[in-house]
Amino acid sequence: MIHRFAITTSLRYHFDQAGWLLLNLAVTKSHHQRILQESWQNSAGVTIQEQPTPEGTPRFHALSVPAGTLEIKYHVEVERAVQAGDQSWRPPEVPLIDLPPAVTRYLYPSRYCESDKLVRLAAKEFGGIDPGHEKVVGVCNWIHDHLDYLPGSTDEHTSAVDCLTLRAGVCRDFAHLGVALCRALGIPARYGSAYAYGLPSHDLHAFFEVWLGNQWWYYDATRLAPQPGFILVGTGHDAADTPVATMAMGVFCEAMTVDVQRLTPLEIDYSIQPLTFYLNS
Amino acid sequence: MIHRFAITTSLRYHFDQAGWLLLNLAVTKSHHQRILQESWQNSAGVTIQEQPTPEGTPRFHALSVPAGTLEIKYHVEVERAVQAGDQSWRPPEVPLIDLPPAVTRYLYPSRYCESDKLVRLAAKEFGGIDPGHEKVVGVCNWIHDHLDYLPGSTDEHTSAVDCLTLRAGVCRDFAHLGVALCRALGIPARYGSAYAYGLPSHDLHAFFEVWLGNQWWYYDATRLAPQPGFILVGTGHDAADTPVATMAMGVFCEAMTVDVQRLTPLEIDYSIQPLTFYLNS
Amino acid sequence: MIHRFAITTSLRYHFDQAGWLLLNLAVTKSHHQRILQESWQNSAGVTIQEQPTPEGTPRFHALSVPAGTLEIKYHVEVERAVQAGDQSWRPPEVPLIDLPPAVTRYLYPSRYCESDKLVRLAAKEFGGIDPGHEKVVGVCNWIHDHLDYLPGSTDEHTSAVDCLTLRAGVCRDFAHLGVALCRALGIPARYGSAYAYGLPSHDLHAFFEVWLGNQWWYYDATRLAPQPGFILVGTGHDAADTPVATMAMGVFCEAMTVDVQRLTPLEIDYSIQPLTFYLNS
Amino acid sequence: MIHRFAITTSLRYHFDQAGWLLLNLAVTKSHHQRILQESWQNSAGVTIQEQPTPEGTPRFHALSVPAGTLEIKYHVEVERAVQAGDQSWRPPEVPLIDLPPAVTRYLYPSRYCESDKLVRLAAKEFGGIDPGHEKVVGVCNWIHDHLDYLPGSTDEHTSAVDCLTLRAGVCRDFAHLGVALCRALGIPARYGSAYAYGLPSHDLHAFFEVWLGNQWWYYDATRLAPQPGFILVGTGHDAADTPVATMAMGVFCEAMTVDVQRLTPLEIDYSIQPLTFYLNS
Repeated sequence: MIHRFAITTSLRYHFDQAGWLLLNLAVTKSHHQRILQESWQNSAGVTIQEQPTPEGTPRFHALSVPAGTLEIKYHVEVERAVQAGDQSWRPPEVPLIDLPPAVTRYLYPSRYCESDKLVRLAAKEFGGIDPGHEKVVGVCNWIHDHLDYLPGSTDEHTSAVDCLTLRAGVCRDFAHLGVALCRALGIPARYGSAYAYGLPSHDLHAFFEVWLGNQWWYYDATRLAPQPGFILVGTGHDAADTPVATMAMGVFCEAMTVDVQRLTPLEIDYSIQPLTFYLNS
Repeated sequence: MIHRFAITTSLRYHFDQAGWLLLNLAVTKSHHQRILQESWQNSAGVTIQEQPTPEGTPRFHALSVPAGTLEIKYHVEVERAVQAGDQSWRPPEVPLIDLPPAVTRYLYPSRYCESDKLVRLAAKEFGGIDPGHEKVVGVCNWIHDHLDYLPGSTDEHTSAVDCLTLRAGVCRDFAHLGVALCRALGIPARYGSAYAYGLPSHDLHAFFEVWLGNQWWYYDATRLAPQPGFILVGTGHDAADTPVATMAMGVFCEAMTVDVQRLTPLEIDYSIQPLTFYLNS
Repeated sequence: MIHRFAITTSLRYHFDQAGWLLLNLAVTKSHHQRILQESWQNSAGVTIQEQPTPEGTPRFHALSVPAGTLEIKYHVEVERAVQAGDQSWRPPEVPLIDLPPAVTRYLYPSRYCESDKLVRLAAKEFGGIDPGHEKVVGVCNWIHDHLDYLPGSTDEHTSAVDCLTLRAGVCRDFAHLGVALCRALGIPARYGSAYAYGLPSHDLHAFFEVWLGNQWWYYDATRLAPQPGFILVGTGHDAADTPVATMAMGVFCEAMTVDVQRLTPLEIDYSIQPLTFYLNS
Repeated sequence: MIHRFAITTSLRYHFDQAGWLLLNLAVTKSHHQRILQESWQNSAGVTIQEQPTPEGTPRFHALSVPAGTLEIKYHVEVERAVQAGDQSWRPPEVPLIDLPPAVTRYLYPSRYCESDKLVRLAAKEFGGIDPGHEKVVGVCNWIHDHLDYLPGSTDEHTSAVDCLTLRAGVCRDFAHLGVALCRALGIPARYGSAYAYGLPSHDLHAFFEVWLGNQWWYYDATRLAPQPGFILVGTGHDAADTPVATMAMGVFCEAMTVDVQRLTPLEIDYSIQPLTFYLNS
């Protein structure tokens, strides 16, 4: 099933002095995400340089900017081939010694996903569920049932353990907790960011991915937007190394908005299906 | 200057049930570290399988083991070409937009290196020091002067912020704090583990590396062992993703000892030189 | 129902230099706890001075000691009138504005009981239970069911939120979590220490108290020892202000043992009754 | 030296449902603070009941309120006898075993003042300063020099260790750090709130008190307002048990303003004198 989306992101930065920006805003290129057209504009008229990165991985654009206000607009039209997991095939967990080394590192705790502290809790809550997809669905449902989605309840320092304690958070926190619980269960997991069609807020969305049956599948415990409408942007250990923008000191983001439109009539069911899982190339 | 070392590491594990181990114990292969001979032994007679990894990066060995006690011995003889930084050339900081993408990620906070919380402290303490090597030396000296090296004062959950508060730690903590402060100053930094000739304890040593002048250089704030006697093993964001062993549940490490001998007469000065920096290939 | 117990506590301290100790080891005097005889011994032959405190509150003994090793022995025989709550009367919660000011302060978070972070969790887990005794029993049962009693899993810095995350702890942690959850529910709660007949370890025990129906009642989520066999020693916001010993720098506790014997035949049921609550004078 | 001040505080609360409030807004009565006149108004016409508390301790007023918006106004005229410490007499530290039991508890860590973690740091930074007043002045100066006063940098969960790490905070944080460092040095310390003449913000001020020479003296590391212009309101272990208002669930503070006027010509020097210390009765 292939659909087209048009995405426009606008940002405004203030530079106290000349500085630079490294942006992770562009959608990933892969055989599931084909870019039809893409354009960048900026009010300072500076060059926006894309850094070379392998297909299927996050893309970065660098700018060197004079002091003052900078407005950036990114527009993209993308063709997205959504591949839901075959519901009769449940992708299994992979024994650690069979993991590719590049995947192994997603077993370890990271800045906002302190899986080392959650081993006992995860075993108690999810130890009885069948391994693999069923267990990850159990994690998603548990997060959805035990946490309130509550904008303003957390901030940029909030970790998985923090939101687990507070029992509230936003999509970033739900994703961190999903990652941390999966790692605590011995399942490689990473953080992802995406443009999401139908998302209530005009912002990037966060979700999480797990390695099952030798592929990354994505899951979302928030149930805020239909997963087939995700257009993938970034992945990383957690939000710490998946920032929209990495900035020199003295640079401040003043505003950001996201608009996602569908360009094709949608035949697929865009209702939220928490038990469905989707392939990230 | 080339020297030879012989290293023997012995470990004992207990497996409650059949399980697996992934070891990061072998010394790195690079044009600065040539392995003359290397051998593995284990009491269970199981295969120890090396995973394929690029030259110059950490090496991993995997084992699948029956229940019971497992003893492992790793022996290596290695030729180490130490290249100290040219003392008249001070490697400079690299502007973020000129960093290779594989290095950029070492700017971000990680599990034990919460650089996001230390930006103001780092600017206050080190803002006035010349950028590059001089600033990193300032960080090393500050850590050495403000923290006590005190075995038993910290544990495996202790982070850079924790040891900064407690003003005490071990080599792992000193390395985490060095990494966190450098990242807070905008300098890419990562954690490293090594066998160290002359180290008082029979254990692996931890240090940190920073990216200056387009290479990784290593620094050690502990002043516990001569830096030319480091034989490199692992690197990562911090100790979270640089473990000696990644284990299945129900596997426990009961003992570990390390012995490092030099095989060549040493003409170089092995006294501790905190202002010297060394190249990691 | 009145019973007699004989308690002997032995401690050994090392003083690097002359210093002092303030001990909270003596059993409380109240109309529920009558001291029949009491004696102190110490190897340094120094005076052990009791500080004046009101009946029913913790008692403190002060010593000024020369450098070296100090051995202390405290022996007491005590008559304990246990008053279980009338099982047909359920003590109710008291509206805040009717609380005595000396009780109000036990509504607030303290060092190891961060009730401010647990308001949402407590409301979700216990909001549906009848207020008063039933709700506190719900808290005790939840702690017992969700945490492992596991010596060595926590240390002196561990807080209620920490042990809630780790899902493990010792009596001190179970008590902290009980206190924190009750305060998060708007019920005044404090930490208590006691000698406990039948406790598996030779140590002081920790439990918690809540203010219901205008009295302090004590509860114990560990189910480790029969509550009628508690002989009360200290109370405070949490373990931070209920230490066995407050010491000058350079003083270290090297050993402590506790022995509790019953002197009367016991007719009451000493089996563990988690639903029973007991009056602290 | 006696001066008169007029203070007006206005608050607005929203009650989702009928509930109650316990306020610690009234100025303390003591022989240093004589109330000339005092009045309360509220938009709901409910009774504001003062709870009985001893002279010289914080005062509490309780209200039971119907659902809706509640406006409260508190007005007081007060005669304040400021007693600065005799600059030639330096109040000394008191050995622990000579402390009144009611003071001893201010040696222990509390929710926002984790003095247990700061013992080594405090000894390193302040160990060489003369004990007593000089040492506390050293603490004040260190805080003033190492932290930025920066509204918005911290929130209601921020502790002394947090603001020490972040190197920023507001008056509440500066007070917490002063308390924590003094306790880590073995000096009893507590948190205080006051109306402060000349304070830039229209809010209550926070400072800290230490027990020296058998009295509580107050210190302020912020240097934001002249200490002789403090009119004392609350004291406690830290902000956790010194809240302006304790509220039932479903009650929210929407606004608060404070206005402090002097009614007498001031002959004393109201400039900020960080080395001066003042007696709290």
